[in-house]
Amino acid sequence: MTQNTVEKTSLTLLGLGAMGTALARTWLSAGHPLTVWNRTPARAAALAAEGARVADSAAEAVAANTLIVMCLLDDASVDEVLVDADLTGRDLVNLTTSTPAQARTRAEWARERGARYLDGGIMAVPPMIGVPEAGGYVFYSGSRELFERHRGTLGIPAGTTYVGEDAGFAALHDVALLSAMYGMFAGAAHAFALIRKEDIDPAALAPLLADWLVAMAPAVHQTADQLRSGDYTKGVVSNLAMQVAGTPTFLSTAEQQGVSPELLNPYFELMGRRLAEGSGEEDLTGVIDLLVR
Amino acid sequence: MTQNTVEKTSLTLLGLGAMGTALARTWLSAGHPLTVWNRTPARAAALAAEGARVADSAAEAVAANTLIVMCLLDDASVDEVLVDADLTGRDLVNLTTSTPAQARTRAEWARERGARYLDGGIMAVPPMIGVPEAGGYVFYSGSRELFERHRGTLGIPAGTTYVGEDAGFAALHDVALLSAMYGMFAGAAHAFALIRKEDIDPAALAPLLADWLVAMAPAVHQTADQLRSGDYTKGVVSNLAMQVAGTPTFLSTAEQQGVSPELLNPYFELMGRRLAEGSGEEDLTGVIDLLVR
Repeated sequence: MTQNTVEKTSLTLLGLGAMGTALARTWLSAGHPLTVWNRTPARAAALAAEGARVADSAAEAVAANTLIVMCLLDDASVDEVLVDADLTGRDLVNLTTSTPAQARTRAEWARERGARYLDGGIMAVPPMIGVPEAGGYVFYSGSRELFERHRGTLGIPAGTTYVGEDAGFAALHDVALLSAMYGMFAGAAHAFALIRKEDIDPAALAPLLADWLVAMAPAVHQTADQLRSGDYTKGVVSNLAMQVAGTPTFLSTAEQQGVSPELLNPYFELMGRRLAEGSGEEDLTGVIDLLVR
Repeated sequence: MTQNTVEKTSLTLLGLGAMGTALARTWLSAGHPLTVWNRTPARAAALAAEGARVADSAAEAVAANTLIVMCLLDDASVDEVLVDADLTGRDLVNLTTSTPAQARTRAEWARERGARYLDGGIMAVPPMIGVPEAGGYVFYSGSRELFERHRGTLGIPAGTTYVGEDAGFAALHDVALLSAMYGMFAGAAHAFALIRKEDIDPAALAPLLADWLVAMAPAVHQTADQLRSGDYTKGVVSNLAMQVAGTPTFLSTAEQQGVSPELLNPYFELMGRRLAEGSGEEDLTGVIDLLVR
């Protein structure tokens, strides 16, 4: 009975874009009483047919439940939407995309209004929500008490990973992983560009590329180990001097294939700068220190 | 008996750097009669103790066998080392790092000297050689006949992947995959830089980062599918307009964390350029066309 009550927590969701709508459907399917509100009402109406209660205003939606989940356009929208709402005693979970600084400011803003605050960073696109095997999850940071109380409910749409009391840490982890992903996509774009004018099927390159990236991704464990120890030569196989010696082959190949080196240059330049500092025996890890001001 | 003869092909290896030495050991361990030569004789002496025959000159080493594998410093070294060698009737397998154009020129050079030619690009570091579970392999391109004849012998140190008659294709595949890897490493460097001043253990970020990169790597299959069809909107989930709208969060976060955006900027700039061309409904694939001149 207690277990059942916990699993069927009643909650409010503000914001029904593609992500908000996907979240809403998972809670409705799981039998959670759900109150929704959206600036433009059409999307709310569709969810009403699936069992959601539609509030006439954000303030009314906030008044309806203790647990309030927000999935709005941006941080400024949170101010606009909640301007008239009484947040006293509310458990605010903010899944709106934000920077770490915005999340920290928002946590303070919530505290001043008598609410507990948990910030979230969604590591998934809408089609991955409610599909556990898709591997999507949400980073959470801020009130551990709030997270522990509602983790069952929060775990319905996607996995949950709590990363600390600092409300900015969820956004920071989110941005860190997505930034790394864009780096990988940039590398893959360069790879596809290299074969663009050749008689090579991109669909033949793709599995080789995916397998290679998957095989090389665990190199980040060694990077982390080196960062912790401060010894960037630890476990090195191809040292910086050897790798810098190889870069002309990459740049010449790009030139031969008529491909701009603009996506390769910045990393190679940092490698060269680090080498010039006398770090030829190190791994590539020293590049990280050059990035931090 | 025939099978045994095929598996124990006698061969010559020119070049005993870290990679050449690793290759040599796998052939010796597998019982292949091996003749070696190296510019500086010390490394050859070590292998002699393990059963290798050491030639006094590269020309003598080439005369000793039909199958000649080269693993030299660079393309220019191939000319220097083979200046006095008679290549008539030889099966040359060149694992020396080179660009596609160098490999193509080298194939023609070999043909003029009466040799068959196979070019190779090694997707492994020396510790992965002779360790099948490490997943290293070698791209081969050029003479299919030569590859088929010697694939058993060539498969001893690492897996073999033949990618076409064009002698430049092995180098092109090699460079494409390694370029993509550097992009991924650049992205990971930015991610680690973002947490450098925070109370976040790099070893706690690493598994999250590795898992996310592994989960996102298969996106290259959709990229390939879009490149083949020419329809860059096919299967799109987060379109270019949405992704460009998200880039200020990444750049602001870098700014807040005191991290230079130099590794993120070039890809984001290309995304912005493609969007400005009116491609907001597309996936990120159009960036590839902007790279190709």
